[in-house]
Formats: sequence, structure tokens, C-alpha cells
Amino acid sequence: MAAKDQVKALVFDVFGTVVDWRGSSIRELTAFGNARAIKRDWEQFADEWRGLYQPGMEEVRSGRRPYTILDVLHRESLEKLLAKYEIKGLPEQDIQHLVTIWHRLEPWPDVVEGLTRLKKRYIIGTCSNANIGLAVRMAKHSGLPWDTIVGAEVARAYKPTAQAYLGTAAALNLDPHEVMLVAAHNSDLAAAAKTGFRTAFVARPTEYGPKKKADTAENTNWDISTDSFNGVADAMGCPRL
Amino acid sequence: MAAKDQVKALVFDVFGTVVDWRGSSIRELTAFGNARAIKRDWEQFADEWRGLYQPGMEEVRSGRRPYTILDVLHRESLEKLLAKYEIKGLPEQDIQHLVTIWHRLEPWPDVVEGLTRLKKRYIIGTCSNANIGLAVRMAKHSGLPWDTIVGAEVARAYKPTAQAYLGTAAALNLDPHEVMLVAAHNSDLAAAAKTGFRTAFVARPTEYGPKKKADTAENTNWDISTDSFNGVADAMGCPRL
Repeated sequence: MAAKDQVKALVFDVFGTVVDWRGSSIRELTAFGNARAIKRDWEQFADEWRGLYQPGMEEVRSGRRPYTILDVLHRESLEKLLAKYEIKGLPEQDIQHLVTIWHRLEPWPDVVEGLTRLKKRYIIGTCSNANIGLAVRMAKHSGLPWDTIVGAEVARAYKPTAQAYLGTAAALNLDPHEVMLVAAHNSDLAAAAKTGFRTAFVARPTEYGPKKKADTAENTNWDISTDSFNGVADAMGCPRL
Repeated sequence: MAAKDQVKALVFDVFGTVVDWRGSSIRELTAFGNARAIKRDWEQFADEWRGLYQPGMEEVRSGRRPYTILDVLHRESLEKLLAKYEIKGLPEQDIQHLVTIWHRLEPWPDVVEGLTRLKKRYIIGTCSNANIGLAVRMAKHSGLPWDTIVGAEVARAYKPTAQAYLGTAAALNLDPHEVMLVAAHNSDLAAAAKTGFRTAFVARPTEYGPKKKADTAENTNWDISTDSFNGVADAMGCPRL
């Protein structure tokens, strides 16, 4: 059956797929550095901060640590980097400001229009490793019209473990084949597909900046392959606004 | 400190406070009875169905049963009533149609405008015993602009246990005193207040129909007492639309 006849909800990876985490965090870190007269390579800082993302979650996925929300992991990795970059004695308010950079990430230009179209016909939600408090603040900051936040915190499991997808579908009273994951990352889509999800790949070629190549749809077989949320909305039969 | 200077999120009881469960379910049951030529006292049926709500949850609250979503409890109580009312042999599709009456409840007339005003300044969400799948479908059916669904399923606990409120605040990264519960029921507000929540009472005098008196704000001391969501928005300093 065609995905658009079977799917009842679309759920979205967030970091990289919905929002430009790298561009947004570099802009915020640079502005912070300028305001505090702290000179560092903030582009490198942003990439290293993101680099600590998977190891932090791996502690939870492996069972070595109980489920811990991403805001806490972001703070821990920030503190490591502040030490490494020899940025000392920041007041708590500044640390909070930096941790919540992840609450203020900006969406790619096609996102709000595509989500608005999809929302008219489908349930739309997050299927992100972001915790609810993070995702809801990002939604308010950037005008993301989610019906609800689901994903890791609701499922009590980080992607790409099967439970993250299965718990998301269950929270929406849906079977996995009634849910489509939209993501810019093939590994995320592959893990979701294994649990029965339908899949939409959206290319975000500049996600990692100039040094690392982003995923493409080459040699993949997703239900949808496109380069924008409007492309997903077109494929799912949602009228233009 | 005034509630409006301290509160970051307003969370809402749903059945009775946001939606007119009784009027909506009587209308749906009556229409179903007419379509199937089944004559029963549907008003009485609706009241008895709602009457089985607390006993169903009490099995979970008492620990006699693991956390079970409300859609499942609604189905179990429906099956009891169908037997009692001697309505036999309904096809699965009809049973699903009846269970999902709770997904299609209509809001009181002031609700969408009040929520829209509050959403501009605060995080707004549910703090209901409804499961996520139920609440998100009701939101789409009735145009309720929640930022996210929280409450019982996220906290894995039914109100009025403390964990239902504390888990809701924690999911939003907030301390209890930064969250306001809006409800038409004094017992719900009292339980929330005990955990540190701020409180807004909204009178819904016709909630139970002619036979049972609804709560009033008499002899209470909530942060806000009003009779509409616009009244809550006024008290919280939200401009008119």
C-alpha cells in the first residue's frame, strides 16, 4: 500500500533534519564570545560539542546509566569542553544560556511551511533524542507547529534503539507501519524501518559544514527521498498553502 | 510573587475543564443509537460510563494493576455497559467508534480563544488522565493548540497522585511552582497545590447536567478563580486577540 494511504502520523528527527544545529550554535557561541570578550574557535567548539552527543547517549543505551535527559547530557559535555578550552569561572546564568542554545536552534527555511501543510492531514510530532522540555521550547522559539512531542523521553530510550521508535508509535496508539519517520540520516531511517516504520529521507547537505559530508539518498530505498519538507508534503498528497 | 510573574507553563485538566464530555458523549451515543436503531437511555449510559472512570484508574493508582492507558480502561468499561444495557453483537468497528467518542469531545465555547491567548506567552499543555493518543486526536478534532501533551501517560501515574503533577512539571524542565494547573475540579487543584503547583479554577456549572452539582470556588483559595479560559488569560496578563 502507498505510504500516503497507510500513514497516520509523521514523526521527525530534529537535530539536522528540522533545525540547523551547526549554523545556529556557531552563531550563538560567537555572539556569546563577543559579548564576554572570550576569543576561541567557536566553529570547532560547536563541532566538538556535537561530537560528544553520541558518547553521552551511549552510556544510557548500553545500560551503564539510567535514562537521563539530553539537557543534562548537554550540560555535562559543555562542562568538559569549557575545561578543555580553558574557559573558567562562568556564572551559572552563562552556563544556562549556553546549555539552552539547543532550545533556540533555527529551522531550515522549508520546515515551517512543510509542517503546516502536513499537519492539516496527519498527526505530526518529534521523534528526537531531545527531551520534552528542550523540544517544546525549540518549538515555541522557532514556530514549529507540532501536535505533540514524542520520541526518546516518552519512550524512555534513545534512538536508534528499537524501543525509541516502538515507544513513539505506541504513545500515538499506532502500529509502526502507520508512522513515518522523516530524517536526514540513513542510520536513523534504517533503525526505524527495522521496527516497521515508513521512511522519508530529506537531504540536508550543509548539516556538518565543509569538513564532513552529509548523507545522501544514494543506494537507499526509502518510501520518500527529497530535499525539503515541502517535498515530503507533496509526496504525502498535502495541498500547497 | 504573583502567579503571572512566576509561572512558565499552564497545564490543563481536560475532561470537564476543556471539553464538555457529557454533552458531547450524549450527542454521539444518541446519533449512534439512531443510526443503528438501538433505543436506550443514552444520557444515563453516558453518566454510567463516566461513573466507571475513577474505579478503572483506581486499580492502577492502588498498584493492583500496572499503568494502563485510558483508552484501554474506556474500552473495558464500555464492554461492561454494553453487557448491562443488553447491546449485543456489535462489530469491532462500532466498538472502536464508541471508544473513540472520547477522542472527539467538543470544547466549551471559550476554550480555543483562551488557549490561543495563553500560548503566546506561556507553554500550554494537558495535565489530564487522557493518554497521548487520545489527547492528540481530540486536539486535532477540536482545534486545541497545545504545545505538547503531558500528564498521566508521560508521568506514568494517574491524577490525583502527586507523581502525575510532579512528573508533568519535570517533563517540562520546570519546578512545580512554575506550573499552573487549570481545572474545574477542586480535588484536582488541591492535589496539585500540595505538590507546589499554582492553581486556576474555572467554573463549569453544567458539566454534570441537571442531576449533580458542579464544583464552585466557594471556600477555596486558588490563585485564580474564574468562569472561562479568557478569564485565566486576563488574569495572566495575556492581551486580547
